[in-house]
Amino acid sequence: MNPSDADRGSLTVIGLGPGDPALLTGEATRALEEAEVLYGYGPYLARVPMREGQRRVESDNRQELERARAAWMDAAAGARVAVVSGGDPGVFGMAAAVCEALETGPESWRGIRLSITPGVTAMLALAARLGAPLGHDFCAISLSDNLKPWDVVEARLRAVASAGFVIALYNPISRHRPWQLGRALVVLGECLAPHTPVALGQAIGRHNESMEITQLAQVRPESANMSTCVIIGTAESRLLARGDLPPLLYTPRSMPSPSTERT
Amino acid sequence: MNPSDADRGSLTVIGLGPGDPALLTGEATRALEEAEVLYGYGPYLARVPMREGQRRVESDNRQELERARAAWMDAAAGARVAVVSGGDPGVFGMAAAVCEALETGPESWRGIRLSITPGVTAMLALAARLGAPLGHDFCAISLSDNLKPWDVVEARLRAVASAGFVIALYNPISRHRPWQLGRALVVLGECLAPHTPVALGQAIGRHNESMEITQLAQVRPESANMSTCVIIGTAESRLLARGDLPPLLYTPRSMPSPSTERT
Repeated sequence: MNPSDADRGSLTVIGLGPGDPALLTGEATRALEEAEVLYGYGPYLARVPMREGQRRVESDNRQELERARAAWMDAAAGARVAVVSGGDPGVFGMAAAVCEALETGPESWRGIRLSITPGVTAMLALAARLGAPLGHDFCAISLSDNLKPWDVVEARLRAVASAGFVIALYNPISRHRPWQLGRALVVLGECLAPHTPVALGQAIGRHNESMEITQLAQVRPESANMSTCVIIGTAESRLLARGDLPPLLYTPRSMPSPSTERT
Repeated sequence: MNPSDADRGSLTVIGLGPGDPALLTGEATRALEEAEVLYGYGPYLARVPMREGQRRVESDNRQELERARAAWMDAAAGARVAVVSGGDPGVFGMAAAVCEALETGPESWRGIRLSITPGVTAMLALAARLGAPLGHDFCAISLSDNLKPWDVVEARLRAVASAGFVIALYNPISRHRPWQLGRALVVLGECLAPHTPVALGQAIGRHNESMEITQLAQVRPESANMSTCVIIGTAESRLLARGDLPPLLYTPRSMPSPSTERT
């Protein structure tokens, strides 16, 4: 180890989980404490307790690559830098932008220590509240067509719906992307029965948490927003009534044949 | 609220994460402390610190439904019961078995409080170590054909590989299922280029952690075991060399068009 290594900065990408501090991992908590400077989208930074002497650099949620570059520059200058990301940084979060900034940045950045701290991503937090909707094979798709053509989104929706995957939709709607969720539901309606269970959840674990279980043909896209995660069940998914308690939504582990029971 | 509710037992399904105690959430830690009895597969129970007065009921990893039923019976008898699950309980874990046992059990169980504590699932922990391989749309598939026909597994692999999803394989191989991973790789080889990056990781965050980055045509199925998670990249995934540091594996957020840059 080179003696100058000790002076060198570092970059950590931290998964904040869905928002409830109780869903943060110990590793993430420690990484937040150790950082000298935090980079992130304002609402995510706002979830992190303030610490004396710790700098904060806020940016807009559509400036991921610019944020990642600024964080690398700061680390290259010797700082212990953290980039915060909602949920898990590897799931439509900051980890890919940080890698992309590294690939396109100066060669010298590649010697800077990088660590990534996983977190509980939205679909897992929502699934835990509902029962076990992911149950078996599942996928996660971002409905944002800012970075991929919409045709690709539709082709992917058809592929997974037809193949029996549970589908979690991220980034379903925003001010700049008002029609994509509605169109996705039409596409899914061509592959799945109208009564297929669908759950929408937002701000899971936060004070303004809300959840709704409905059916594919009944979903109102306008009830979703940027922070909504949508879980679309399969032909096997079912609702389990529980009297006064909320119903459970789950997708059995086994395929149709009702006699199988071992895993 | 009925006065007898206070006496009633409860059931909590707890995600232990990938194994490193630092990757446990605060909620999971508290739930483990509050339980009077813990049900689980032996190696998972072994990760939980012993507490005086807390009972433990170990069972084999192929007895998920039996374990879930026993846990509900204990809760019905008034105990604060926890069922532990590796990773996230909703991802090929105990949550679905607990729902299934509830559906097929006595009506009275439906009044028992159930909570599910999410966790960091294996693919997220492995992805964090590698860089950002999940990067964009991705899916998780269990290669176990104990609960679904193998034909379904192959059809799902073809659907997602052809549609450009990153693929995480769970339960790739076991003593009772020795050929499935090899066959899955053949199927994937029909849809993806031989040099598609593949990562295998096991026991992430535990003392015996190991990881390997290779290419689709080079994967040796015998290097995997029951606890291995396999991540198969896409045509866009790439390796980023970093001198003395391990290379990063990542899948860019954007589709081919190299001029797009906003999210």
